[in-house]
Amino acid sequence: MNDIQFSDCTKACMSCSLACTSCANACLKEENLEMMRECIQRCLDCADICQLCARMQQKESPFVKEICELCAKACEYCADECSQHEHQHCQQCADACRECAAEC
Amino acid sequence: MNDIQFSDCTKACMSCSLACTSCANACLKEENLEMMRECIQRCLDCADICQLCARMQQKESPFVKEICELCAKACEYCADECSQHEHQHCQQCADACRECAAEC
Amino acid sequence: MNDIQFSDCTKACMSCSLACTSCANACLKEENLEMMRECIQRCLDCADICQLCARMQQKESPFVKEICELCAKACEYCADECSQHEHQHCQQCADACRECAAEC
Amino acid sequence: MNDIQFSDCTKACMSCSLACTSCANACLKEENLEMMRECIQRCLDCADICQLCARMQQKESPFVKEICELCAKACEYCADECSQHEHQHCQQCADACRECAAEC
Repeated sequence: MNDIQFSDCTKACMSCSLACTSCANACLKEENLEMMRECIQRCLDCADICQLCARMQQKESPFVKEICELCAKACEYCADECSQHEHQHCQQCADACRECAAEC
Repeated sequence: MNDIQFSDCTKACMSCSLACTSCANACLKEENLEMMRECIQRCLDCADICQLCARMQQKESPFVKEICELCAKACEYCADECSQHEHQHCQQCADACRECAAEC
Repeated sequence: MNDIQFSDCTKACMSCSLACTSCANACLKEENLEMMRECIQRCLDCADICQLCARMQQKESPFVKEICELCAKACEYCADECSQHEHQHCQQCADACRECAAEC
Repeated sequence: MNDIQFSDCTKACMSCSLACTSCANACLKEENLEMMRECIQRCLDCADICQLCARMQQKESPFVKEICELCAKACEYCADECSQHEHQHCQQCADACRECAAEC
């Protein structure tokens, strides 16, 4: 990795966005797909919001505070669902969401 | 940071996308703004393409190869411009672009 | 709607991106979810690529040609799957994809 | 255009996102670039937020209300700046922002 330093919050948002994208994708391939509906939907939402949140921080947007608050909510909401599933990708995604919510 | 592992290419795309966003934002505040027109435009393009590229990798998209090739081109194109400016953000962005182009 | 004019291609990309997002969301709620796995995945891919394609056109990016070619491929690929499902959202999404592919 | 119907709010968000992207791009080419710094920055912010807002509506996200409120704020903030510039792209962008703010 290069030398650019991002804030812990930006890094948490980046990681969470990609973890959620990855989890939604993995959920779509699970045998018990019926049980994963809610998880997929929350992951897709959270991925988009975290992605915007990381970007807004780099832009020093005047709306960083609002988007961070929304991001924390979306992360908690996603973690609540992901943490109920035993798949490793869900557990890892729940961890990424909790960390991102804490940073935001 | 949590335990989720992303590939070196995904990490390079994430970093490059945010470095480009950050560089465009910093360029907009420079005194010699006239000279930064091209840099801002290339950074904004590169930021969007890298962001999509990282996401497509997490989705295991069948179009990963095509988007990676396009991403490498956009990174080289952005680095060619950024590397000509002495601002630290431009030099760091050029490095991030070169690394991302190499990974892609 | 206001007076700003977008090109037919930009409008087709916008519409297709949102139709794909909407179709993926509706698929997630269908009873025969097992059969919709592939459709959801292709719609999510196509939504992201179309969204970028519309944006790159507005930016007059030097990479418009490449992203349009990729967009046309993703649209055809999504339409091939969507058109096989009888749900109205799938049929409408397939139409939006075919139109976007033609414009690109 | 195909037969898919989007809500007036979704259409306003789509149009505004692309109008802002287009305006930022046109501003970067203006002679009086010094005066356009703030306009470019606000347009780039507004473009990203409107794009997310349109998408969240198609996903029937539980966070639609929050993102719409944020979107309305970003649109007003962008319109306040754009409306002060005589360039046609700025005036059209200001109109798109005001309309999007009203719909949201």
